[in-house]
Amino acid sequence: MQNNSKRKIILDCDPGHDDAIAILLAAGNPNIELVGITTVAGNAEVEKTTNNALKVCEIAGITDVPVFKGSGQPLIRNRETAPDIHGDSGMDGPVLPEPEKTFEDEHAVDFIIRKLMDSDGEISLVPVGPLTNIAMAMRREPAILPKIQEIVIMGGGTFGNWSPAAEFNIFVDAEAAKVVFDSGVPITMMGLDLTHQALATKEVCARIASIDNRPAAFVSDLLEFFRQTYLDVFGFEHPPVHDVCSVAYCIDPSVVKTKHVRVDVETKGELTYGMTSVDLLGVTGLEPNVNFATELDHTKFWDMVIEALNNLPEQ
Amino acid sequence: MQNNSKRKIILDCDPGHDDAIAILLAAGNPNIELVGITTVAGNAEVEKTTNNALKVCEIAGITDVPVFKGSGQPLIRNRETAPDIHGDSGMDGPVLPEPEKTFEDEHAVDFIIRKLMDSDGEISLVPVGPLTNIAMAMRREPAILPKIQEIVIMGGGTFGNWSPAAEFNIFVDAEAAKVVFDSGVPITMMGLDLTHQALATKEVCARIASIDNRPAAFVSDLLEFFRQTYLDVFGFEHPPVHDVCSVAYCIDPSVVKTKHVRVDVETKGELTYGMTSVDLLGVTGLEPNVNFATELDHTKFWDMVIEALNNLPEQ
Amino acid sequence: MQNNSKRKIILDCDPGHDDAIAILLAAGNPNIELVGITTVAGNAEVEKTTNNALKVCEIAGITDVPVFKGSGQPLIRNRETAPDIHGDSGMDGPVLPEPEKTFEDEHAVDFIIRKLMDSDGEISLVPVGPLTNIAMAMRREPAILPKIQEIVIMGGGTFGNWSPAAEFNIFVDAEAAKVVFDSGVPITMMGLDLTHQALATKEVCARIASIDNRPAAFVSDLLEFFRQTYLDVFGFEHPPVHDVCSVAYCIDPSVVKTKHVRVDVETKGELTYGMTSVDLLGVTGLEPNVNFATELDHTKFWDMVIEALNNLPEQ
Amino acid sequence: MQNNSKRKIILDCDPGHDDAIAILLAAGNPNIELVGITTVAGNAEVEKTTNNALKVCEIAGITDVPVFKGSGQPLIRNRETAPDIHGDSGMDGPVLPEPEKTFEDEHAVDFIIRKLMDSDGEISLVPVGPLTNIAMAMRREPAILPKIQEIVIMGGGTFGNWSPAAEFNIFVDAEAAKVVFDSGVPITMMGLDLTHQALATKEVCARIASIDNRPAAFVSDLLEFFRQTYLDVFGFEHPPVHDVCSVAYCIDPSVVKTKHVRVDVETKGELTYGMTSVDLLGVTGLEPNVNFATELDHTKFWDMVIEALNNLPEQ
Repeated sequence: MQNNSKRKIILDCDPGHDDAIAILLAAGNPNIELVGITTVAGNAEVEKTTNNALKVCEIAGITDVPVFKGSGQPLIRNRETAPDIHGDSGMDGPVLPEPEKTFEDEHAVDFIIRKLMDSDGEISLVPVGPLTNIAMAMRREPAILPKIQEIVIMGGGTFGNWSPAAEFNIFVDAEAAKVVFDSGVPITMMGLDLTHQALATKEVCARIASIDNRPAAFVSDLLEFFRQTYLDVFGFEHPPVHDVCSVAYCIDPSVVKTKHVRVDVETKGELTYGMTSVDLLGVTGLEPNVNFATELDHTKFWDMVIEALNNLPEQ
Repeated sequence: MQNNSKRKIILDCDPGHDDAIAILLAAGNPNIELVGITTVAGNAEVEKTTNNALKVCEIAGITDVPVFKGSGQPLIRNRETAPDIHGDSGMDGPVLPEPEKTFEDEHAVDFIIRKLMDSDGEISLVPVGPLTNIAMAMRREPAILPKIQEIVIMGGGTFGNWSPAAEFNIFVDAEAAKVVFDSGVPITMMGLDLTHQALATKEVCARIASIDNRPAAFVSDLLEFFRQTYLDVFGFEHPPVHDVCSVAYCIDPSVVKTKHVRVDVETKGELTYGMTSVDLLGVTGLEPNVNFATELDHTKFWDMVIEALNNLPEQ
Repeated sequence: MQNNSKRKIILDCDPGHDDAIAILLAAGNPNIELVGITTVAGNAEVEKTTNNALKVCEIAGITDVPVFKGSGQPLIRNRETAPDIHGDSGMDGPVLPEPEKTFEDEHAVDFIIRKLMDSDGEISLVPVGPLTNIAMAMRREPAILPKIQEIVIMGGGTFGNWSPAAEFNIFVDAEAAKVVFDSGVPITMMGLDLTHQALATKEVCARIASIDNRPAAFVSDLLEFFRQTYLDVFGFEHPPVHDVCSVAYCIDPSVVKTKHVRVDVETKGELTYGMTSVDLLGVTGLEPNVNFATELDHTKFWDMVIEALNNLPEQ
Repeated sequence: MQNNSKRKIILDCDPGHDDAIAILLAAGNPNIELVGITTVAGNAEVEKTTNNALKVCEIAGITDVPVFKGSGQPLIRNRETAPDIHGDSGMDGPVLPEPEKTFEDEHAVDFIIRKLMDSDGEISLVPVGPLTNIAMAMRREPAILPKIQEIVIMGGGTFGNWSPAAEFNIFVDAEAAKVVFDSGVPITMMGLDLTHQALATKEVCARIASIDNRPAAFVSDLLEFFRQTYLDVFGFEHPPVHDVCSVAYCIDPSVVKTKHVRVDVETKGELTYGMTSVDLLGVTGLEPNVNFATELDHTKFWDMVIEALNNLPEQ
């Protein structure tokens, strides 16, 4: 039975350590209806991210959410992945069996279009990987635009992590990002400014370790690997679980403070390709198009995650 | 019954005056099997170009070729059309009744993917408008790439007509063009260098006027309008029927001379967006990827067109 | 008599409210030898910034420092000024008589080249406006490069104030900035990250107001005007005196903390022209070329300024 | 004594085989007053091109024309030279003694500024290498702009030879070219469209070989080397003597036909950096700024060159 008061989301992801936790949060929270999981090339090739999504569903007992394989490469550019951060599989660390569950025949882009066209505007898109699927759906069927309730993006920021100026998700497919940011659909954006506040501190990890179920153990393994790569590559003491912020916002928007500003995507720059130009000072004079998240309620955020993990079935 | 010796093509077009003649040549020539006509926004909005394609089919008695409506806007950019050249309808001049024939439910991109996946590599794509549909099909289903026999593009050149550097079809969706030119599929290219040789001279027009059927009368009306806009906008004495060259090449490759060269698409330039960089002198050192048409056999070309018009049924 | 233990600087500026205070700090501090003041178009046209520099010298009794008029427009681009911030004169607010002092016949670029070529590497350049003069000198006479002790730039940052990505001084002549940042000369950079800490708070203003000489009264008038435009345009409560940071660093490097990082200038971007790409996370793998100032000792900074104002002669 | 009816030119060059012949034509023609020769990095480093200019003067007995060394690198970019075309010395082929003549102390840019400021608008600039010196003079002293009678550029074209889109001189310093083309000064442009008609055919070479003086023998040696590199690199049967066209035009403008069109320089393109966008069809709607040479009177051109060589002194 569907509870109509639940918020309906399609989670478009490329698991990915933080993507995996985002799936668990969506599945474990009673106020979210996960309409579908769609996958995209990003942290790893789309075959791997799809397989990882299926594994996460299996370990968390998510049986009623269909998984759809999506775009294997960006709209225009060549593919780029992030094995230094997520390992070769895209979700290195935890040792998991091959999933029994399989992905649907329908392509992710077709699923997104179909679900939106059948909806009355009550579905939000939550893309936490490159925006290829979302942009392709928008271009393939522009009639979906007024049907999208909100797009809650993890990506971009006023600074970068893949280049000094650009965050990975936007860098990988800046042309797709441009299509989405220019679409006129309401956008809330969890950029690095916000997600670098979503740190899995030692105290947080201890709380997760104390939960006695398999999904929590899986998250502990994810965070252990992620902590190490973030230390090695970026010198971070604690890893930021970027993608989880988007789902947390869908559950309770008060978990972040936002500012309504203009954001545009650079696709021509030599050093700045894939940068999101965030007009915090209002110097462009352009109409704001994005709720830009600036501040995370760290306690509320992790309480939500812990609670969701507790809600997931012991297997 | 399908004659296996016929060359199978999908004609992807945006009628358009020269597009219309290209359809008639394909339909009237016994060596071409027109597997389908797909439409795209270009010379006019896709609703108009689709309607125009249906009108052309009707006037020429083309009843067995399905028409598929395709992309209404470029992959990334905003739409740009050419009313100065083709009138508001995209095919101004001839007065035609609304078509009874309608387009298929399937989207052009899905049709292209389906037909190619079902084929054994015997289908060529003949895009004579912006390359949006072709690029979107390639990105949506990369498995089509080895299935495409050849792509015979009308577009680009060593000079432009929409800017000093860029030809209209490439300019309108340079990102799509980049995807196609970078695809590794065999490409033959009818750029402006070639198509500006395909002039509808007065002698040619007189020959067409002497054909006593409705398609030929329709072509005469098309050329009368086209002659005037080409004179007004570009100062040309005779209008070039660009798109017809691609179909003519499919019928008989000897109608053009080609040179095997490297062609790449500029997507970053300030003044040169949408230019095809054609390496005629071999200075880039890059592997050739395009058969670039340099010289048209004017007599053979127009003989082919005249013959096809004669073959079309009097209605 | 020259005290050899003084640090020799050429101050290249476009007064400009904060430029004016930078001149006063340099003139009033016993450890700086101001070899010359050179001017450039930036906050206002070069005729105005030169005139403003002369006025500042006059009001502060700076009689032994020659002023050289420099470049009236950027290397490549058209000129852009900042009347919204500095008023039409480039230094609106204080009412000052026309200066009696005049600028030298020699062009600023020629002066910079001559002084450096005659030196033994003991002169630093302190450009606090667009980098046009410095870049032009480098290109006109590359032999100056090993003669420059250090370049202490005010400009750039990880965010912008003229566009969301670019700071004014770099935006106005990004090509010049590229020449300078690529020059191989040791660079210390006071970007907005640092200069937005150099706020003229109410307490600071009160301290300045209590100094009983004409230069201090002049500074009070400058800050009153500057406070209002920074409030109106940027919504800042207190105005940042950007340019003063560069001179303060020359006096005592310990006034800022710096990080040795790679900085490059974007000259191709559509939204990001003139951005300094600051590689704080070390993701580019490129050799560091800039001491990037990150943290200001606010107390030490303003103590320095107050002390210098006290040192200036009552007129 | 100066004959006032002579056309006064400053030849700005980077010898260079065709540059050398351009100098000889200017020196040997009675209607040209060669005010000075300025050099620039281009075909080779500026030390080499300066030395080559001095050698040419010496071999041709040009004793009254001062030579000024100019810019050693482009305004913004790194230096690029053309040893494949001109050999390592920039003028390989002829064996010449080191020149006794030396270049002046004054920098080429300063000379250009001084001569123009002292003139009444009767001097034309004839840059046949990269436009670095000219642009730097324009930016250093904008007051020269109304003093320049005409700029007769060798560079650019509707196609390229250094990339598919860009000609060498413009490619090497496109930013400088942008400054010059945007300057508002009357420009006549000898692009590749024209200069590829200025071929040193076998018949031409035979005529030169029959002249019995040292300069002609020198030209024969130049052309022998140049013929070989043009054959090897570009597959040309006969080498084009690009730079000579600019001087020939100064002597007698009727040697070329021109079209008054808009020309702009691309500085942002990925594949098209340094292209001159030549608006032959008038599609930009921008004001024409260039007399673009389209057609050469081959006979008149070579007659001029032969006559000038005959006029030069036997040494």
